[in-house]
Amino acid sequence: MAKLPKNPVENWEIPAVEALRATPDTRVADIQTKGTPGFVGDKALGERLLEERGARLSALQELLYANGRSGDTRSVLLVLQGMDTAGKGGMLRHVIGHVDPQGVDHASFGVPTAEEKRHDYLWRIRKALPRKGQLGVFDRSHYEDVLVVRVHNLVPPDVWEPRYEEINTFERELVESGTTIVKVAMFVSLDEQKARLAERLERPDKYWKFNPGDITERGFWPEYQKAYQAMLDRTSTEHAPWHVVPCDRKWYSRLAVTELLIDALENLDLDWPPADFDIEVEKARLAES
Amino acid sequence: MAKLPKNPVENWEIPAVEALRATPDTRVADIQTKGTPGFVGDKALGERLLEERGARLSALQELLYANGRSGDTRSVLLVLQGMDTAGKGGMLRHVIGHVDPQGVDHASFGVPTAEEKRHDYLWRIRKALPRKGQLGVFDRSHYEDVLVVRVHNLVPPDVWEPRYEEINTFERELVESGTTIVKVAMFVSLDEQKARLAERLERPDKYWKFNPGDITERGFWPEYQKAYQAMLDRTSTEHAPWHVVPCDRKWYSRLAVTELLIDALENLDLDWPPADFDIEVEKARLAES
Repeated sequence: MAKLPKNPVENWEIPAVEALRATPDTRVADIQTKGTPGFVGDKALGERLLEERGARLSALQELLYANGRSGDTRSVLLVLQGMDTAGKGGMLRHVIGHVDPQGVDHASFGVPTAEEKRHDYLWRIRKALPRKGQLGVFDRSHYEDVLVVRVHNLVPPDVWEPRYEEINTFERELVESGTTIVKVAMFVSLDEQKARLAERLERPDKYWKFNPGDITERGFWPEYQKAYQAMLDRTSTEHAPWHVVPCDRKWYSRLAVTELLIDALENLDLDWPPADFDIEVEKARLAES
Repeated sequence: MAKLPKNPVENWEIPAVEALRATPDTRVADIQTKGTPGFVGDKALGERLLEERGARLSALQELLYANGRSGDTRSVLLVLQGMDTAGKGGMLRHVIGHVDPQGVDHASFGVPTAEEKRHDYLWRIRKALPRKGQLGVFDRSHYEDVLVVRVHNLVPPDVWEPRYEEINTFERELVESGTTIVKVAMFVSLDEQKARLAERLERPDKYWKFNPGDITERGFWPEYQKAYQAMLDRTSTEHAPWHVVPCDRKWYSRLAVTELLIDALENLDLDWPPADFDIEVEKARLAES
């Protein structure tokens, strides 16, 4: 039986995985947050494609799940990291929402709990890693420990400084054990963030998403840019590269992340697992039952 | 601001929650597994309604989630229990798949692990209970401990016998702490199960779902019917009633469970949580930021 055919990806001049991969030349200050790198098309087309490609993502995820149930130890981990309002929640709903919920291991990482603080920063991360055959999704991640922690001096530099290398080592271990890591850094402009926060203050159905601390954090924008720059410079590795996703246009960022996940899953080159039983014997047993 | 209006539920002669609720007269042996209790319409209509009502379910779940983030301690727990091939997996994909994955706490309960066996049977259940504001989904549950365990004498009667009352007490505690429990017993006929197992033996993309043990279990059908009868008789309580869902027609069972969840969420009478900050103050702060 044929594998799922690898469709040509139309409307991408450059595949998302190439157009978005961080390079040593990536400058956070220069990111065009309204851009649609690699994609040729408008919002209407992007939204239509999201549905089509979401179905493709769902089919590939089922293959991953099926193989996991049959002993394959591989998994895929999407790491979403970005400033407030960049659209991480929407990514969960509109991208991961295409996929069978049974196959998703989702975790979000906020301010560490009292128990988490009594452990190393990677403790809670390791506990939440996807099971084999699963699509893991981290809404924020271990990168908080070199972003907000660095910006606010929550620990001294001699503590956060070694973390870049620790994280690289940790991720290499994951990759070697069969986890494909898809790292997505989501960028909005300061103006777009303002507009999104304003909406949360205008609409009573959005109040619950608003946190006064989000405005306070805007005052640290240059420090965050510096911390994101260091993150990209020091943790975009061969085994787990960063992808820089402009997020002012939600339709683009969602389509782009869908393509990144499809690419990761296609690279696993999965087929339906063979029967681990004698088909004819079982047919005879079933007929008699 | 208006709450989500409670739509009239069209095409249901009797609301699902009434048509399906177990009564003292429910006889497992008499369940019409091809039936569509309460519903007036065919498959095409049912599938169209599933999309419409799935959107409604999604909107209500967002309200639950928003309130959970704002301090409301309530949650909803869907318990799916049924014979092999009854369609629990499809329920996850096609019903829960409508909902934002962030808001779902999903757990499945298979053969207990070595660690789980070293604890009381409710230990793993308690660990997997939904967080406040979440929609929990149990794919199998603590009822395994009065079904497969009873059928196969995995523990003696004096151990499983008291469990009915223990479970009732456990569930009452959950309900009192704010969890609405929606218990769904899924029934297929012996013939329909045979057809579904046969499909798994015909289609290479279904082999991974096939387990030779499923055929073995068919030999215990009368014992399972007896165990399901005892479960309905002894654990369908005022605070957590069972719903008996015929599952030979997948479109019906999915629509019915969607309606049961909508009913449970509507009964929470949720509104968008009010702002817990001064809106005008925050607007001024945002403008200056």
